[in-house]
Formats: sequence, structure tokens, C-alpha cells
Amino acid sequence: MKILILNGPNLNLLGQRETAIYGHQSFDAYFEQLKKKFPSVDLHYYQNNSEGKLIDKLHECGFSYDGIILNGGAYTHTSIAIMDAIAGITTPVVEVHISNVHARESFRSTSFSAKKCVGAIAGFGMFGYEMALSYFLQKTK
Amino acid sequence: MKILILNGPNLNLLGQRETAIYGHQSFDAYFEQLKKKFPSVDLHYYQNNSEGKLIDKLHECGFSYDGIILNGGAYTHTSIAIMDAIAGITTPVVEVHISNVHARESFRSTSFSAKKCVGAIAGFGMFGYEMALSYFLQKTK
Amino acid sequence: MKILILNGPNLNLLGQRETAIYGHQSFDAYFEQLKKKFPSVDLHYYQNNSEGKLIDKLHECGFSYDGIILNGGAYTHTSIAIMDAIAGITTPVVEVHISNVHARESFRSTSFSAKKCVGAIAGFGMFGYEMALSYFLQKTK
Amino acid sequence: MKILILNGPNLNLLGQRETAIYGHQSFDAYFEQLKKKFPSVDLHYYQNNSEGKLIDKLHECGFSYDGIILNGGAYTHTSIAIMDAIAGITTPVVEVHISNVHARESFRSTSFSAKKCVGAIAGFGMFGYEMALSYFLQKTK
Amino acid sequence: MKILILNGPNLNLLGQRETAIYGHQSFDAYFEQLKKKFPSVDLHYYQNNSEGKLIDKLHECGFSYDGIILNGGAYTHTSIAIMDAIAGITTPVVEVHISNVHARESFRSTSFSAKKCVGAIAGFGMFGYEMALSYFLQKTK
Amino acid sequence: MKILILNGPNLNLLGQRETAIYGHQSFDAYFEQLKKKFPSVDLHYYQNNSEGKLIDKLHECGFSYDGIILNGGAYTHTSIAIMDAIAGITTPVVEVHISNVHARESFRSTSFSAKKCVGAIAGFGMFGYEMALSYFLQKTK
Amino acid sequence: MKILILNGPNLNLLGQRETAIYGHQSFDAYFEQLKKKFPSVDLHYYQNNSEGKLIDKLHECGFSYDGIILNGGAYTHTSIAIMDAIAGITTPVVEVHISNVHARESFRSTSFSAKKCVGAIAGFGMFGYEMALSYFLQKTK
Amino acid sequence: MKILILNGPNLNLLGQRETAIYGHQSFDAYFEQLKKKFPSVDLHYYQNNSEGKLIDKLHECGFSYDGIILNGGAYTHTSIAIMDAIAGITTPVVEVHISNVHARESFRSTSFSAKKCVGAIAGFGMFGYEMALSYFLQKTK
Amino acid sequence: MKILILNGPNLNLLGQRETAIYGHQSFDAYFEQLKKKFPSVDLHYYQNNSEGKLIDKLHECGFSYDGIILNGGAYTHTSIAIMDAIAGITTPVVEVHISNVHARESFRSTSFSAKKCVGAIAGFGMFGYEMALSYFLQKTK
Amino acid sequence: MKILILNGPNLNLLGQRETAIYGHQSFDAYFEQLKKKFPSVDLHYYQNNSEGKLIDKLHECGFSYDGIILNGGAYTHTSIAIMDAIAGITTPVVEVHISNVHARESFRSTSFSAKKCVGAIAGFGMFGYEMALSYFLQKTK
Amino acid sequence: MKILILNGPNLNLLGQRETAIYGHQSFDAYFEQLKKKFPSVDLHYYQNNSEGKLIDKLHECGFSYDGIILNGGAYTHTSIAIMDAIAGITTPVVEVHISNVHARESFRSTSFSAKKCVGAIAGFGMFGYEMALSYFLQKTK
Amino acid sequence: MKILILNGPNLNLLGQRETAIYGHQSFDAYFEQLKKKFPSVDLHYYQNNSEGKLIDKLHECGFSYDGIILNGGAYTHTSIAIMDAIAGITTPVVEVHISNVHARESFRSTSFSAKKCVGAIAGFGMFGYEMALSYFLQKTK
Repeated sequence: MKILILNGPNLNLLGQRETAIYGHQSFDAYFEQLKKKFPSVDLHYYQNNSEGKLIDKLHECGFSYDGIILNGGAYTHTSIAIMDAIAGITTPVVEVHISNVHARESFRSTSFSAKKCVGAIAGFGMFGYEMALSYFLQKTK
Repeated sequence: MKILILNGPNLNLLGQRETAIYGHQSFDAYFEQLKKKFPSVDLHYYQNNSEGKLIDKLHECGFSYDGIILNGGAYTHTSIAIMDAIAGITTPVVEVHISNVHARESFRSTSFSAKKCVGAIAGFGMFGYEMALSYFLQKTK
Repeated sequence: MKILILNGPNLNLLGQRETAIYGHQSFDAYFEQLKKKFPSVDLHYYQNNSEGKLIDKLHECGFSYDGIILNGGAYTHTSIAIMDAIAGITTPVVEVHISNVHARESFRSTSFSAKKCVGAIAGFGMFGYEMALSYFLQKTK
Repeated sequence: MKILILNGPNLNLLGQRETAIYGHQSFDAYFEQLKKKFPSVDLHYYQNNSEGKLIDKLHECGFSYDGIILNGGAYTHTSIAIMDAIAGITTPVVEVHISNVHARESFRSTSFSAKKCVGAIAGFGMFGYEMALSYFLQKTK
Repeated sequence: MKILILNGPNLNLLGQRETAIYGHQSFDAYFEQLKKKFPSVDLHYYQNNSEGKLIDKLHECGFSYDGIILNGGAYTHTSIAIMDAIAGITTPVVEVHISNVHARESFRSTSFSAKKCVGAIAGFGMFGYEMALSYFLQKTK
Repeated sequence: MKILILNGPNLNLLGQRETAIYGHQSFDAYFEQLKKKFPSVDLHYYQNNSEGKLIDKLHECGFSYDGIILNGGAYTHTSIAIMDAIAGITTPVVEVHISNVHARESFRSTSFSAKKCVGAIAGFGMFGYEMALSYFLQKTK
Repeated sequence: MKILILNGPNLNLLGQRETAIYGHQSFDAYFEQLKKKFPSVDLHYYQNNSEGKLIDKLHECGFSYDGIILNGGAYTHTSIAIMDAIAGITTPVVEVHISNVHARESFRSTSFSAKKCVGAIAGFGMFGYEMALSYFLQKTK
Repeated sequence: MKILILNGPNLNLLGQRETAIYGHQSFDAYFEQLKKKFPSVDLHYYQNNSEGKLIDKLHECGFSYDGIILNGGAYTHTSIAIMDAIAGITTPVVEVHISNVHARESFRSTSFSAKKCVGAIAGFGMFGYEMALSYFLQKTK
Repeated sequence: MKILILNGPNLNLLGQRETAIYGHQSFDAYFEQLKKKFPSVDLHYYQNNSEGKLIDKLHECGFSYDGIILNGGAYTHTSIAIMDAIAGITTPVVEVHISNVHARESFRSTSFSAKKCVGAIAGFGMFGYEMALSYFLQKTK
Repeated sequence: MKILILNGPNLNLLGQRETAIYGHQSFDAYFEQLKKKFPSVDLHYYQNNSEGKLIDKLHECGFSYDGIILNGGAYTHTSIAIMDAIAGITTPVVEVHISNVHARESFRSTSFSAKKCVGAIAGFGMFGYEMALSYFLQKTK
Repeated sequence: MKILILNGPNLNLLGQRETAIYGHQSFDAYFEQLKKKFPSVDLHYYQNNSEGKLIDKLHECGFSYDGIILNGGAYTHTSIAIMDAIAGITTPVVEVHISNVHARESFRSTSFSAKKCVGAIAGFGMFGYEMALSYFLQKTK
Repeated sequence: MKILILNGPNLNLLGQRETAIYGHQSFDAYFEQLKKKFPSVDLHYYQNNSEGKLIDKLHECGFSYDGIILNGGAYTHTSIAIMDAIAGITTPVVEVHISNVHARESFRSTSFSAKKCVGAIAGFGMFGYEMALSYFLQKTK
């Protein structure tokens, strides 16, 4: 099973940025834990701050991977282009947000990308990625 | 660990209603599976079509249970009263939707209740309840 | 032919409440007339002020009756849950309003429930129920 | 009893246009049936695609007829001028739509004309005209 | 001096329609008075309920007359086409409303046509036409 | 003088819920104080979390009591049905809110129910009920 | 006949300010002409840049004058207080604007004050005041 | 105890203006009654039609008085400046409206000033001032 | 190949009206050129200022022609009736605008008719008609 | 070089009001510092809480001064009249806000006055006035 | 003649992505055909998923090429930056969309970029690029 | 003192693009002047047309520099991602716009980025960068 975790803008600052909202752990540290916990999964990780690069990555992996876990960051709320990219590929995508976007500014309650995803998970911190992963795993059972 | 699954309006029709969206399994059948899968959890289940009865149940369990998994159905999008109930109790609440509400009519993209929940999960079918359960379980580790 | 007339909030006050808009006849008196006029129809009548109880009744009758005539009162304009209940049953539902909702406050021009009904009738006083009934009768001819 | 059926834009295409929504019967054929079914009523029929011609007809008949059954087609949603014409005449007007306008595009849920009508009927196919007719008939009893 | 008074939908009912708002005098009677009062002006009058016919008349007179007094009735609030016709001709146009449109329904406070007129007059009853006429007269002094 | 205090959703949690906004006193304790302070008034108290039950109570008391003091909680902002119930009864109703709803989330600044009440009081804590009571008392002087 | 011309903010700059829109004549010069043209009218003139002072003047003259001609300037579009003042007095008020407000920024198309005036005149330059005056004169004939 | 009653635009016309809404008593007459009824309170009264003067008065009294009762009239709905003035002083302010603003035009349902007040009272006629006064009195007990 | 060019309101003024936007050539002159350039196409041309007449023409040609090139003028932005006419016929329709509607007033960026057309072309002057024609020609190759 | 600093409502409370947002220094103290720092500039200062008085001052100085630095306070967001005054004078105006209005309530993100100013500065505390002054100084170099 | 075809996000997936909407041909294959069909034109092609890279390319070619054909994909609806880039260059730009954006989700009916283009073409599949090309060719004749 | 000037999309065209709005000087030329004028400041400059690259640069410099001067160009109005980047770093950011964005299209009056900046400066041409610089300099005094 081959899964891509795709993180969008500012998520490279995790553990460093707005720690009251996002916690103190860096994503790299978390990713190592994740790989250990799910040794049977072929886990990949990519982060970029550019909308275009995220689209490139969705295209690159979106026809061969078994699943993509997308945290589009702020592009979630504004990018029709990422939504179109998800619609254009065949790999199913699951949307994850670390914070509970519903409880924040009103412009964070819109999600273009979730319209074309399998579903969305928000508010469970890093554990949200694990929930998404568990979804892909149970599907194949 | 004591957890309540609280289902709102029309979820008693699961397996029977709009099966293209919600699937063919009744919730009672699913609940039996769930209890078997998580034998260590003291799982309770309550469904009601009345907004007021859901609030009553939140009050009743909201100070002693370890977690509540709420699928508020259509009240999710209109009920400030349920949102206030969640804010008024001490048990953490997780919102679950079986279908991907972001991909449906625009009035389903508003969630009053999620504003006061830990987080929200939508689009993973029945498995969403299991994801919510796994969140409460990992918290206590 | 088995038909349910389902009346929502405040319709128990008919003949008593805002008579300039709703007229002076109680629904019970009207219902007796209706039964006499349509002796061949197995007519039932239920009124409740609770959104949840109306949903319960839709579920209870919505798989065996030949038709439901719904006057959802003010819930017409706010209840996605009743709309979902109509979508979830198999019995066809016809929406009736005694007053002409289009000619009143702007918030009465939205109807969630009518989206999932066969159609809607508004402004013909008590006679609207008879029009709905005549629709079900001609269908079977 | 003298009644005018007044049909607006595109209703001349009935039986031909968007048959999934409007059915396969032409209005002329239906009108013949209607006259046979209600031999005691002096029934008239006029169709025009022009907003102005519909207003002309409302003026022409609106002070001497006993009732007008108006299917304003798409002008229902945009024409303040037709609404003003209804307000300016003394004959009562009933609005009819063949399809359930509440279940279609959002711009079809506004009705200017219905604000000045006795009431409105939508979604019952051709039978809606008969419902409107039955309203005028029972009024005179 | 050659002036056209151009009246839109429902203004043929003046003196007959909604007399609480529009008064009891027919426009024909008023027009005779007006011609007597302004013998030096070559006054013309045209009324039509059709948007297209009003545009035709604007084109016909809009390059040779000295002024047009337009009461577009309800088309005032919805017709971009009439607005474009006014922009396309060279004769200056003055907008007149008999009633005070600002004090009525909110959809009557929009005027497309007035955007391309010299100015607008509303609320002075029939006298508004005389005010418009006096404007054209003083301009030539 | 017979007065009903009618409390809506979540007000049973008073003294327990969001004490920073609503204070530490339970309503039962407060009600005992109130009865002592106004011995001449026949004071009744009812709380329910269900919209339908609040409407039932308004109907039950709304033709015989001298006044109703309504704290509709969150239903204030969403319930047209409660608004209709107030319009349908003859007992005058006064709206009370413990917190200053104008200073909170924007969706709390709409009040359907207040449209049909004598007036509304918000922001004075428990003392608001006493203010409402004093209104009914001075009216009879 | 006693008439007040009441000018609001920035109208003291007439002849000096934005002459492309408002022309080159000062209001004082125009007022002298006006008095000469209408010797039989007892004409008064007051200008102030303060919303409160305009309200004071409306109160002062609004029970004894035969008419008030109000050019509320920019307060037209924002002042509910001036609207209330007009509603509170007995003298009829006519609204005048020098420029065609309908052809300018969209926020100039709202007029609170006109809702309580006899009517409104816009776009005829200084001549608009004369049109308003002629209205008051013909009324007394 | 030192209390200021601060009345905004048009409230000087009380007893004279729109008596169907505001009643027949002048505020001066009412104020004399109020002083007699509350002899222990050092009551002051100020009215002005100017937004700026109301702000001046709030500043003047807002650091030494025990309470301010503000009826901002129409400025309630439009003045951010008065809202800022209330936020800038230390004396608590209570908002009073004589009429039930919730039952009138929709633009009267917004209150900027109430956001920074202790609370708001609307619809109880002159008695509303007394309710506000009773609030300040019970606070000191 | 049989093609209709259908021009809506004010397009009869081409070459004469707002030449800065629409150019100096009349449509008749252009049409002669077009016929010469495409001798193999059976080209027809109809212009009318009435919405109803445009609908009539769409019905008349819409079941036998190979293509319709529609420049609905201002009706593009307001006419649901024309949109319904296009949906009701079988001939494919292409929308053309001479000016770039996207660069003009915001109300010109809505197109009801384009929703049911094959596509839309705007901003290329008269050449837009030729582009539309070339589309129909290449389809048959 | 002659410059006016014009402060609007509540800015007389600086150093005293909402010090978390506006700081502890009074404007008078700051103005003395400023004059010392810019001895070559003829600096004037005027504050008023009345919209009308601010307009008066803009007119008074707006044809002879070299620059005006305007902090319109809350009138910034609501006053079309001040915007018109700036458009009507010849002296260039620079808008200054002490706090970062973009980071506060959404109604503070609209600025009518800035539309007619040279530019706007917000969020730099008292130093914003100095920035505005430096702009006028560098212009003359 | 030197022309750039500039394709935005997801257009690299043409022939592969959402073929029901976009067809089965890849853009590379189409581009080869196009070059053969227009041998006299110096045709260039560039695709990128990044908004910034599209802007870079517009700058690079926008002062020397004879025309740019831009299919901005989803950026069309959200990118003010691309709109500014088009405004900042001297080469004329024509907007092309393969699908009929007017017939899809409402957020696709806004086009920022088209505001600064010569015009826009939508709904004609790949042939739209050829239409754009024909526009540039006929201009030079 | 180490300061970064960060320019967004299209600002590389300065001196070349829309010179009526932005002036004739290139930013490189201006930057040389600036460095000479502020020899004590360690000034850096970076421009990119990509949203992602601007975020990268904010991250790179945002924990070590003393200040960032950001002209986000059109991304100012649409980028939540840049807003989040500013919130995620520790270096204070000042927003600068060359033109007066308040006086342009309405979509330019929204600024996401300014919500997380110290403040914003708009309309003073290139001198705005100097104003921002002077803010950072005076802070350290």
C-alpha cells in the first residue's frame, strides 16, 4: 500500500508556528513515528508552499498511489485549481486539518478541495493523519 | 472508558433511506459490530429525531462520560441550541457525518455544532464512528 | 387509499389564532367534513408542535401510506431535518399552506421541505388540503 | 363562470420541450380534455411568449372574468410588471406551475407574481390547472 | 419643441388601478389638460405594456425629438435593455414616477433606466410629468 | 396576577454552564428568591429543551395568564415557529436574555420571537426576569 | 406661503466644489434669483454640515411652514435620524439632489430620507429646487 | 447615586411625533415624574439631535457618574462613533428604546451601541427608563 | 447548412449607438459581407427588441436549423425565459457579444442564456459572429 | 508649510480610552513633541466629535493649507459626507489611524474617506502622524 | 506573427482528466495539428500549474509577441495577480476555456482575467484555441 | 538593523507597467537610492511572482530579521496563506502599497495580510517604503 502525505503552505513551520493552535511537534519528527507505527505501509511525504507544486505532486502520484492525505493549509479555502486537480486524478484523496477549522475565522469554513475528496477530518491534531491512514487501511481489508 | 454515540434526525432510517448516499447497513447492526471490535470500551447508543431530546441527552451524559460522538444529522446546520449544549458540558464531543457534507448542497457546509466540538469527521461512511472512537482511545494512552 | 394529513406547529390553534390570516374554523371540524366528503379514502390526521415528532410520524407512515399531506407550518422555512425525512421515505408527500406564504414576510418564501415533495399548494385556505387529496385520487385513476 | 387560462413563455412547446420535466402532452390536447371535463365552465385559453402581451391579456380579462389561472413560466421569477398587472385588476388570479419550481435552480424559487395572487400551485403536472379550476368552482358554492 | 411622453406597463390602467397609490384620473384625460396648458409644445404620447415596444419607440423618436419623458413603470427596476436604449439615442430622457418609489417595496428602489437619464422625479402624482416638461422648457430659454 | 416564566434550551444548566457568561446561580434557587420577593404574584416556571414543548406551553398558558416571560435561549435566533406561537396567543410576552446577545456572535443578534413580543431585555443577568416582572406589575396599576 | 430650503453637508461649497458635477453657481447667488422669480413665496434658506443641526431645523420649521425642500447631501444615504425627523413633523418635505444620484456610486442610490418625503427630484441641477417649489405652489391652487 | 439619561435624535419631539408608536407624553413631563419616584437618585437629563454632542456628553459624564441610560434613537443603528465612546468611558451604560425596534424596519434591528453597553431594553414605552434605573439601583444593594 | 443570426434589443442601432463600444458599421452592411464570405451557408438574420419575439424566433427555427448565433443584448443578463427557450429547442445555440461584457458593469457578467448554449464569445467586435459561424462549419467536417 | 491635524470622534480621550489599543499618551502631549520635532512646519491641531464640525474645518482650511492629516475615527467607516468634503477641497488629505483597523471588527475595514485621500496609514500608533507629515515634507523637496 | 498559447493548472492532464467535460485529446497532440494548420504563424506553447510561473511567462512574452491565448484554468476565477499581469503588458490577450464555464458551478462564472483581455471564448472544446488564433490573424489583414 | 523588502506579483514591472498608477521608476533604481539614504540599515530586496516563493522568503527571514516590508501586490486581497505565514513568524511585518488601494476596484479594499501585520501604508508611491523603514528605525530609538 502506497500513501502520500501532502502538506501545503506553512506546514513546514509546525512545532514552531502558532503553537497554541498547532502544537509543538515538527512534522518530520511526527512522520518518523508514523512510519514506525505503520511499517507495512509505503509512506511518502511532501510539503510545499506553492499551490502549483502541490498540483504537480497530485498529478505525479495521483494515478499510481493507493491514497493521498492532503492538508492543503490555507489553499483549502481559496484554491479551485487544487480542487480541479483532485477531480482530475484517480487516486482517492482524504483532507486533513490539524486545527478545528470550523471554530476559527469564517473564511476557514469554506473548503473547495473537500468537495472532491472522499471526506475530511479536522481538529484532532497530528492524530488526524493517522485517522486518514486507518481509513485507507480498512478499505483494503 | 465510557462513550456515547448520539445520532440525530433520520439516522434511524440508515440502511433504508437514500442508500446511494448512506449505504445499506442499519445502525443497530453496525453498533453490534462496533461493540465487538472495541470490547474494552463501555459504548452507549442513543438516537432521537428531536432537537430537544438530543440536548437532554448531551446534558445527561455530558458531565460523566469520557467522550460523545455526535452525528447531529440535519440539525448540524441549523441548531445553535445544540451548539450551546456542547459548550455547556464538560465531556469532549466529536462530530461525525457519514456522507461528505462538503460535496452536497451548500446549506450543508455550515456546522454550528462543530464550532464547539474537538473536531469533525465527514465522508467515511460508518467507519467515521470508528475514527472518532480511535481518537478518544489514543488520548488516554 | 390511505392518506395522512400531517400538521406542524401552531396549526392546533386554527380557528383561534390570527383569524384574519387563517380563518375561523378549527382543523378538527374541518377534518370531519373532509372525511364525509371523501368516504372512500382512509384518512388520518396528526398534529404536533415538535419537529422531531413530525419526523417520527413521517417515518412511521412513510413506507406504507399512499400519500402524505404535510403542512409543516413554520418548520417549512427552517427544517432541513424534515426535508431529509421526506427524502428518506417512499410515500409521496404534498406540501400545503393555508395562507399565501409568497405574500408574507420574506423568510416565509423559502421552503426546504418542498424541495423533496411532489409539489406545493399555498393560499387557498382549508381547501388546499382538498386539492392535495384530489391529486392523490386522480393519480390512481 | 368564465375562466381564462393564461400561459407564458415556452409553454407553447409543451409535449415537445424538456419532456423529462414537463411531460409529453401538448397544451392544446390537454385543453380539449379540460373543457370536456368541466362543461359548465366557460373556459378560455391564451398563450404568448411576450411579457407585454400577457399584461395586455390580464387587463383585457381582469375586470370581467371570474378567475384567471396564470402560468407565467420564467416571467414568474423576474417580472414586477406582471405582478403590478395582477394587483391592478379585480379578477382573482391563481398561479400554476407544471414542475415543482422549489426543487429546481434557486432563481426559480422567487415568485413576484404569486405575491398578488390568491395562491400558488406547483409540481402536479397538468393536473395543477384542474386544481386551480376546482378552487374557483368551490368558491361559488 | 417636440416632446414624447412614453408610459410603460400598467399605466394604461391609471384612474382604474390601485387608486390609493395612483389616483383616479386616467392618463388620456390628463394628457388633454397638459396639451392645453402647454400649447407651444408639440406633445406626443405613447403607452405600451411591452418592453420591446418601448425600446422601439425610444429608437424611433430618440434622434429627432427634443425630449422624452419616460415612466417605465415596473421595467424601471429590471430592464437593462431600456437603459441601453436610452444610452443609444441622442434625445435627453427624464424619468418620472407617479408614486414615491422610495417609500414602497425595496425592489422598487433600483432604477436601471435612471442611470442613463438626465434625472428622475418620483412621488408627485401626475404633476411629475409637468415638472419634467418644465425642465425641457427652461433648458431652451 | 398569573405569570409564567418560560425558559428554553440549556437554561436548565444555569449555574453550571459557561459561568463566565451566565453566572453561578441555578435558576431554581433564583426562582425561590423571586417568589419571596413578589408574594402577590402567582408565579409559574417551566423549562424545556424542545422547541415543540415550548410552543405547547405557550398555547397552554397563552389565553389565561396575565403575562409570559420568555427566555427562548438559542431558539430565539432560529425559531419562526415560536414567533408564530406568540402571535397566535393573547397573553402578552416579554423576551429576556441573561447575557447581552448584541455583544456576542453575529447570529445571536437576530430575534424572530422578539418581533411578536411586547419588548425585549438583554444583558442584565438574572435581574432581567425581575425587570420583565416589574413591567407586568406596573401595567395593572 | 412659507417655504424652507434646507441644504445639507458640502452644499455651502456649491460653485466651488466638483464643478463638473455641481456647476459654477453659488447657492447664495441662486437663492437671490429664486426669490425674485417667486416674489409671492416667503422663502427661507438654511445650510448646515451637521446632521444634528439639520434635524433641529426640521423640528423648528416642521410644524408651521407650508413646505420644506431638503437637499440632505450625503446624509441622504446614511441618516435614519433625518428620516425619523421628517416622519415626526407635519410639514410636507420634498427631496432634491442637484446631480443624478442614480448615475453615480452605488451607495448613492439608497435614500433613507426619501422614504418619508412626498417625493424626490434628482439630476436637474439648480432647477430641481424650482421644480420642488412649483410642486408646493400647484398644490394650493 | 448619579445617573444621566441621555436622549438622542428626535426624542425632543416625544408626545408630539408619531404618537401611535411613541405615545402622547413629553419627556420633560415624564422626567419630573421619574425624579419624584426616585428621590434618592441624583438624576440628570440631556437631549441632543447631534451625534457629536451625544459623544461629548458621554465623555463629560462617563468617568464620574454611576450610570448612563442611553436612548440613542436612530444613531443606535448607524453610529460606530457612539459605540466607541461607550467603550472609551468607565461608567456603565444601559441602552433603552421606547418602541420595540425588533418589530419595525429591518435596519432598526442592528445596534452598534448595544455591543458596548451592559445590556439593552426595548419596547416598554417610557417604563423602559425606569427598568434601566432599577438595574443601577439593585447593583449597589 | 442553415444558420440563423438572432440579434436582441438595441442591436438595430449598431453603427449609430455608443460607437466607442460597438463600432461604426451597421449590422445590415456587415451581414452582406458575411454572406459573401460564406457563400455555401444559408444565412438568415432577424433582429427584434422584444424578448417575446426572440423566443418566438427561437421556437420557429430551433427544430430545423443547423445552428443559431444569438446576441441577446441586455436580455442575456436578465432573461430566464430565453434561457428556457434555448433549453427547449434542439438546434445548438452559440452566444455572441460584440463588446467584452466582462470588462463592463458587474450586472453584465451574468448570463442566463449562456447556461444552455454550446458556448459564448465576447469582445471581438463583429468578428465574433464569424467565429461562431466557423464553429458550426468545422463541426460538420 | 502649513499643515492641519484633524482628529475625529473620541480621539480627545487618547491616553485615557482603551489604552491596550491606543496607548497611554494624550494627543496634546504628543502634539507638543511633534511641533518641537518639526519646527519649520506651521502645525495646527483641531479635534471634534461632530461629523459636521469636521466638515466645517475641512472647508475652512482646505483651500489654503498645504496638507491635512485626518484621523476621522469611527466616521471613517460611515461618513460619505466627509468623503465628499475631501473631494470638494483642493488641499491634499492623508488618512491616519492609530490602531491597525484591518485587524479589528470587519466594519472597520471600510473607509469612505480614504477613497478621496492621497493615501492611508494605519497601525503605527502616534508615529503614523509623523509618517504623514514626512510625506508632505518630501513632496516639496 | 508570433503567438503564445499559455495554459494554466491541470491542463497538462487534458485527454486524461474528466474526459466527459474536456475530451480525450492531449494538448500536445492538438498543438502539433494546430502548427500544421497554421504554418505561417510562429506558435509557442507553455503550460504551468503555478500562478507565479504563468505571470512570469506573461511578462516574458508580453512586450514582444503579437498575441497571447490564455487558458488560465481555475486561476481565471480567483487570480487578481494574473489580471494585473495582463494589464501590465502590451501584447493583447484572448481568454479561452475548453468547457462552457457558464454552465458549471457558480464560482466559475467570475473571470478576473477576462476584464483585461480583448475578449473571451468558452465552450467550444479545443476549437476555441483556433477561434482565438483566427482573431489575431484577421486583425492584421 | 536588518530589513527585507519583499515585493509580490507584477512589481518587477514597475516603471514599465500602468505608469499612470505606479510611476516611471523601476524598483531596482529606487532600491539603490534607498540604500544610499539609509546607509546604517542592512537592506535586502526580493521579488517573486509566486505566492509560494513569497511564503518561503517570509519563513527564511522571519525569525532573524528586524523587520519585513511587504508589498504583496494582488495576493494581498486573496492570500490566506501569506496571512498565515506572517502569523507564523516572529519578525514584525509592515504592509505597503504604492497606489491608494481604497480608491480602486472594490476587491482591492480587502487585505488578508494586513490582519497580521503591524500596520499598512497605501497611496504614497515609492515613498511608502521609506515610511515603513522609518517606522522600524524609530522603534529602536
